[in-house]
Amino acid sequence: MATADSTHLAGLTEKLAEQAAAYSYQNLPVDAATVAKHCLLDFLGVTLPGAQEPLTEILRAEAYAEGGAPQASLIGSDQQVSASQAALINGSASHALDYDDVQMHLSGHPTVPVAPAVLALAEQHRLSGEQLIAALVAGVETECRIGAAVSPSHYQRGWHATATIGTFGAAAASANALGLDAAQTAMALGIAGTQAAGLKSMFGTMCKPFHAGRAAASGLMAARLAARGFSSRPNVLEIEQGFGETQCDALRADAALADPQGGSHIRNTLFKYHAACYLTHSSLEAAHSLRKQHDIAPKDVQAVKVLVDGGHLRVCNILEPQVGLETKFSLRMTTAFALTGLDTARIETYSDANATRPDLVALRDKVSIEVHNKPAAQESEVVVDLAGGNSYSATANVAIPASDLDLQWEKLLAKFHAIADPVMGHGRASELAAAIAELENCENFAEVAQLMRVH
Amino acid sequence: MATADSTHLAGLTEKLAEQAAAYSYQNLPVDAATVAKHCLLDFLGVTLPGAQEPLTEILRAEAYAEGGAPQASLIGSDQQVSASQAALINGSASHALDYDDVQMHLSGHPTVPVAPAVLALAEQHRLSGEQLIAALVAGVETECRIGAAVSPSHYQRGWHATATIGTFGAAAASANALGLDAAQTAMALGIAGTQAAGLKSMFGTMCKPFHAGRAAASGLMAARLAARGFSSRPNVLEIEQGFGETQCDALRADAALADPQGGSHIRNTLFKYHAACYLTHSSLEAAHSLRKQHDIAPKDVQAVKVLVDGGHLRVCNILEPQVGLETKFSLRMTTAFALTGLDTARIETYSDANATRPDLVALRDKVSIEVHNKPAAQESEVVVDLAGGNSYSATANVAIPASDLDLQWEKLLAKFHAIADPVMGHGRASELAAAIAELENCENFAEVAQLMRVH
Repeated sequence: MATADSTHLAGLTEKLAEQAAAYSYQNLPVDAATVAKHCLLDFLGVTLPGAQEPLTEILRAEAYAEGGAPQASLIGSDQQVSASQAALINGSASHALDYDDVQMHLSGHPTVPVAPAVLALAEQHRLSGEQLIAALVAGVETECRIGAAVSPSHYQRGWHATATIGTFGAAAASANALGLDAAQTAMALGIAGTQAAGLKSMFGTMCKPFHAGRAAASGLMAARLAARGFSSRPNVLEIEQGFGETQCDALRADAALADPQGGSHIRNTLFKYHAACYLTHSSLEAAHSLRKQHDIAPKDVQAVKVLVDGGHLRVCNILEPQVGLETKFSLRMTTAFALTGLDTARIETYSDANATRPDLVALRDKVSIEVHNKPAAQESEVVVDLAGGNSYSATANVAIPASDLDLQWEKLLAKFHAIADPVMGHGRASELAAAIAELENCENFAEVAQLMRVH
Repeated sequence: MATADSTHLAGLTEKLAEQAAAYSYQNLPVDAATVAKHCLLDFLGVTLPGAQEPLTEILRAEAYAEGGAPQASLIGSDQQVSASQAALINGSASHALDYDDVQMHLSGHPTVPVAPAVLALAEQHRLSGEQLIAALVAGVETECRIGAAVSPSHYQRGWHATATIGTFGAAAASANALGLDAAQTAMALGIAGTQAAGLKSMFGTMCKPFHAGRAAASGLMAARLAARGFSSRPNVLEIEQGFGETQCDALRADAALADPQGGSHIRNTLFKYHAACYLTHSSLEAAHSLRKQHDIAPKDVQAVKVLVDGGHLRVCNILEPQVGLETKFSLRMTTAFALTGLDTARIETYSDANATRPDLVALRDKVSIEVHNKPAAQESEVVVDLAGGNSYSATANVAIPASDLDLQWEKLLAKFHAIADPVMGHGRASELAAAIAELENCENFAEVAQLMRVH
């Protein structure tokens, strides 16, 4: 790492620790509390089906074999386990479908390493909704600031930022939840940083989601140990041979300490509304909006053109998908789903049956994919030519944070029901969503935590 | 990482996994079983006082708060905890005093990340002594081979190899103990490698010993998860953006697969016989041998010359130590201790009282430190001039593995009693040592494990 400019790094970790320790509900940045609830709702939604995945079953079986005090709920099951076991398992479950939120500064998924630690501590220690929200924001802000400091080289070198940097986020959030002061929080960040791990080369295996759970559990433990007086270095980011020097090209304190657009990093969280490859999402949004706006009927469609960045073609352009999994990586088929009015938030939509359903295949065959030269790579344009001669077009870019937070909640609530209802039923899902909607009024989160369980 | 020569890397992880899975007591290399028992005795010895350290108390308190099934003993306490908690806590305790064994290929401490996992599994699953020994050897061989593959750049870049590579050792050992096949062991190595962490910049804090415990627990969990079918990559070392590419300059398959001198890596384990800075050890050995061989009385000593490598001067040449801790880094004082016949294996020898004891200070002031130009940096020479005109000299080099394994056991037994007796009494310490001496005859390690506890 270049050390020529190292003076500006002095005190970086301690500054971040001070900020993390200072968050309370009363002093949260504008919109941060609101978006924190969005993040939580979405986290719970994606965790419920994730909890039914084989990798989560393995981790649960392992935890049951080890035993532990019943301190925190396993989302989507009827069990409580120890707080750190819950952090590990809920975090892994939540990332199992890769359907959770995204943050550009982190180059990763911000909520999944942080929320499991916060939820476990909030349940165990009967924290209020306000405390929980403040801790979540503390965690997300800290990890996004560290993400900004080590980007882009950290991720490029092969580190799974959700795992590595997420460990700091979980530690900062847990420290805030436990009421640690700035000095203790710096120690927690040190204990977290020396545990941070996770290789991108594990993508495509059970280890990818496991990384997120591990980050949550490691960060939780870091804060717990710091609270008991366990020592580390208060400058893990900038110390010689610390996290920065070992795991990025150049640590950028200016980027870490810059004021985020909109007042907080959490405000800029991006959500996934479709259970398909992320690079299909802008096209899906455009296609859905065209259908709604112009009341398009599939039978009237003559031709569809989807204009995307060239990079998309190598990732999600399976022209004639034969099975459900392939439809997730098919711009033509996902566009056909959207124009037909299927609920692309639902996991079940990407089924083997739909991959070969004649009307969908017929529509898919009318879709052509072309490369655009727009400056924003994430932007997509969809153009539909109708039988009557009309032609409509729409563009969308899912990499731009939502401007209307009420609308964002509505969209997230629709996604939540699309994936939570099949697991816990519409009634209980509605109860849970309502509890999150008014989380700031909750005096004891342990009562809400019961709603996360499935009996 | 240079990839020009990457073809020779193909299959490296799987080859190591195959080797690790194949170890059984019956096919161990010559001497490996014998030295494995040496490693275990020494591991237990250094863990007993380490278990009384504040950092271990904190980890125990944390485990008790989390709860867990009583599966494995906490060395030096009267409690059992879950196997992974025992791995974490015993591993941390064992490295607390930095008095545990060393391996040059690993650039670290070989037994401390491996033994805690093996002991916990052997107790929980009532393994035989033979199974335990084979698993320990499997772990040490694997980590030393990986250490050879990533040396020296891995450690130089800032990674604490005992922690990072130790995680692989713990996984290989646990996989062997659990009877995993080669394919499952490769998966375990993958799950281990993506959890491997630990920064050298944490040296001097509680995190250094914590790293070793964390490696043990992570490796144990990796094997457990692999046994349940958890997936990772079977080529974590050599895969693009895997452990090698992210954490060393060039992965050397040839070094990993080379036949170790003496038939096994564990045969080349180096032990610490003195509770002082490792760079004082060669001088201490030479001074002790001079005193024994020539029956030197301190009052007859006129002058002492200690010849060491120049690098030692910056590490352990405090000329006039004032307190006990400083005596550990004082070549002059440790030489005076040895020539006076103090037991330099005992932790209590390095006391504030001894730092200023008049006869020791008087002898210390007759010692001069000089730099030699010997090719072996670890070699030291001690020259003693006596009142009668006689002059004797002796050299020693603690970086050379012992040739006489019976003598090595005797020396380790003396060290064991020097540090274990104050914790558990001579009688119980003798019982434990005797059980390790005949470990291969033990049918159920759970019975021996009881002897590790202190009531």
